[in-house]
Amino acid sequence: MDAVACTEAFADPFTDAERDAVYRAIFERRDIRAQFLDRPVPDAVLARLLRAAHHAPSVGFMQPWDFIVVRDRGVRQAIHAAFTRANAEAAVRFEGERQTTYRSLKLEGILEAPLGICVTCDRSRNGPVVLGRTHQADMDLYSAVCAVQNLWLAGRAEGIGMGWVSIVSRADLREALGIPQEIEIIAYLCAGFVSGFPARPDLERKGWLPRLALKDVVRVDGWQGREGDALHRLLGQRFFPSPLEGEGEDGW
Amino acid sequence: MDAVACTEAFADPFTDAERDAVYRAIFERRDIRAQFLDRPVPDAVLARLLRAAHHAPSVGFMQPWDFIVVRDRGVRQAIHAAFTRANAEAAVRFEGERQTTYRSLKLEGILEAPLGICVTCDRSRNGPVVLGRTHQADMDLYSAVCAVQNLWLAGRAEGIGMGWVSIVSRADLREALGIPQEIEIIAYLCAGFVSGFPARPDLERKGWLPRLALKDVVRVDGWQGREGDALHRLLGQRFFPSPLEGEGEDGW
Repeated sequence: MDAVACTEAFADPFTDAERDAVYRAIFERRDIRAQFLDRPVPDAVLARLLRAAHHAPSVGFMQPWDFIVVRDRGVRQAIHAAFTRANAEAAVRFEGERQTTYRSLKLEGILEAPLGICVTCDRSRNGPVVLGRTHQADMDLYSAVCAVQNLWLAGRAEGIGMGWVSIVSRADLREALGIPQEIEIIAYLCAGFVSGFPARPDLERKGWLPRLALKDVVRVDGWQGREGDALHRLLGQRFFPSPLEGEGEDGW
Repeated sequence: MDAVACTEAFADPFTDAERDAVYRAIFERRDIRAQFLDRPVPDAVLARLLRAAHHAPSVGFMQPWDFIVVRDRGVRQAIHAAFTRANAEAAVRFEGERQTTYRSLKLEGILEAPLGICVTCDRSRNGPVVLGRTHQADMDLYSAVCAVQNLWLAGRAEGIGMGWVSIVSRADLREALGIPQEIEIIAYLCAGFVSGFPARPDLERKGWLPRLALKDVVRVDGWQGREGDALHRLLGQRFFPSPLEGEGEDGW
């Protein structure tokens, strides 16, 4: 660490309360498509969310993102129509009871939420050779996804629910928002204040899929490494120091 | 919102202190490749980080990720050797003074950090048709990227610095970690307790690229929408309500 960095570094540790607040945002963040309140999002709040997104990591400090805030109802109606078309195509890809369940799910809140936020990626920003993207070409796309997650977590902290609406063709989003061909579309989110954040994800609660056990998705020192490790024994326990309590066995 | 959700929802707003802690994590998170302390990461801390990652959003609640914790020094040496090869290839893609600067940058901490964490994506988990992935095929990859950002932010809250090492070929990572061909590699992160988090990103501080002005990456109601909007006037101001003070004009 050089001298400049030493004099300009955040060295104070987070307090336990600060740490727990970060975990609270992470564990209480939900993909929200309902529960929106009829309450506008003040520009000052929106500006904080966008600033949080803009402070995501980016490969080579490329900051490849743009954020299109969508308030206009006509634009949102066009996107909602595109969702409806895509969702009809999607439903028939599931069979029998699964399709019945699929059709019962609420999968977007484009018109109920007062805001949409489209996150894009300009792959040619700052020239063709990007530090850190030379061997993993998708790092710019992944940077923009990190901005989405920042938005989502900041939203939880502000009481703003967000839902990533992915059942829509990107061509339709491009047309509705006038996005140039060379700009990649990463996400369209619906966003607004909500009455609450469900304790469990909708798809878990409705029995679509269970939450995987944490120990089953953690490996040690290589793909095959699982058994007999102290970490795995800890991950397999129902409880270890955490700001959230009361989750069931599958909650890990 | 149905009755079940109403009885099982987080409705309490974040306090201002909790909200500020979330923003603190977001604004003080850094891509860390140095400043690592010679201090092991306890399993309980690592378990919290992994749990935070596992609570990322995922398309169709697919949870496509696995997390390979890498402690073994031999494995990390193999990955470091792969970085060294890739970095030599990368350097010559920059010209003149830019190449000199590139060569002066510290772009990984694979061996200094006590841990590596590789995040992968199993694209066929839970079958071929995934709710929410029918029209945007990369949603599973993007879900795993959200898990990376959760790791990063939880790391900041725990005093653990992380760096995304992208200057390495995924084929080399696959070989070093024994990852099957059908599993997508998303990220390799070096991680460990650090002495501090630089106030600004390394690449900004070293003059590689400046931070873009927030107002220049925000659009309203469509790609062309920028001027004359109250939000833009607010974003263009040097200061608005925020937990962080003292940033310069470009800090927005």
